[in-house]
Amino acid sequence: MSVIDEVLTANEAYARQFAFAHLPAPPARKLVVIACMDARMTVEQMLGLQTGDAHIIRNAGGIVTEDALRSLLISHHLLGTQEVMVINHTGCGMLTFRDEELRTRLQQATGTTAVAPACFHTFSDLTENVRQQVQKIRSHPWVPAHLLVRGFVYDVTTGKLHEVDAV
Amino acid sequence: MSVIDEVLTANEAYARQFAFAHLPAPPARKLVVIACMDARMTVEQMLGLQTGDAHIIRNAGGIVTEDALRSLLISHHLLGTQEVMVINHTGCGMLTFRDEELRTRLQQATGTTAVAPACFHTFSDLTENVRQQVQKIRSHPWVPAHLLVRGFVYDVTTGKLHEVDAV
Repeated sequence: MSVIDEVLTANEAYARQFAFAHLPAPPARKLVVIACMDARMTVEQMLGLQTGDAHIIRNAGGIVTEDALRSLLISHHLLGTQEVMVINHTGCGMLTFRDEELRTRLQQATGTTAVAPACFHTFSDLTENVRQQVQKIRSHPWVPAHLLVRGFVYDVTTGKLHEVDAV
Repeated sequence: MSVIDEVLTANEAYARQFAFAHLPAPPARKLVVIACMDARMTVEQMLGLQTGDAHIIRNAGGIVTEDALRSLLISHHLLGTQEVMVINHTGCGMLTFRDEELRTRLQQATGTTAVAPACFHTFSDLTENVRQQVQKIRSHPWVPAHLLVRGFVYDVTTGKLHEVDAV
């Protein structure tokens, strides 16, 4: 039995208790979170969010890529979110290798090159990385000045969020 | 009080009960999920996943963008995931507008153009969109043939997952 089959059985139990049939699409708490995909963060749980409260955007590292910006712009302009949290975390895999190392490794493992992804967005300074992601949002021409954007580091050993450059 | 301040208070309570101090980075169930950012999906909860079980990649639509592929390649090649779920959902905002409409709207609202994002990845056929995202993964030169990839539509009115082209 594959993990996906197990997960589908769990989803049947979830659907039997389902209580969110009438939620609207716009997030109730007008919040959007950009966080790492890391398995050690259950984002809604660690932020006390309920189903329907917030948009959650996640990728390797919690990076404000072009795709994260695409999602964020849709979230704010079409679905009304007004506050943004960027969350990176301690012990992130993206701190443990460099872009070129991974490219070489994948080329050797698979015996072929690939056009995309053009880069992997590894980084070496966690706090500075959060600061840069916040800045990428603030400097985008389609992000209004009144959108609240705050950056955080999540500690995977304590469960606690620490703000970068606390406002 | 901003929503982010409320969330930080909720996180303090979460950290006081924190029980995941020693989880390793590789996901315990070797699963990676690519899903929409929609607030009506609490992905871990609807799949019966615990903290530490799976990587969760999310963006507007649940699209296999270059960024989602970047995250997926890191998930599989560096952190050992072996099964992939792609999850789109009924009532998705991405079905309700076209790329060019949104670009025009943002240009008018902000009075300026922007280089990125180059596109918004709207779509008009939900099932076909899932099929295409699965295909984008399967056809990538760095994705091995043995990686299990399955596509689903989540019904936001019932809480139930429906497989596209069930295996």
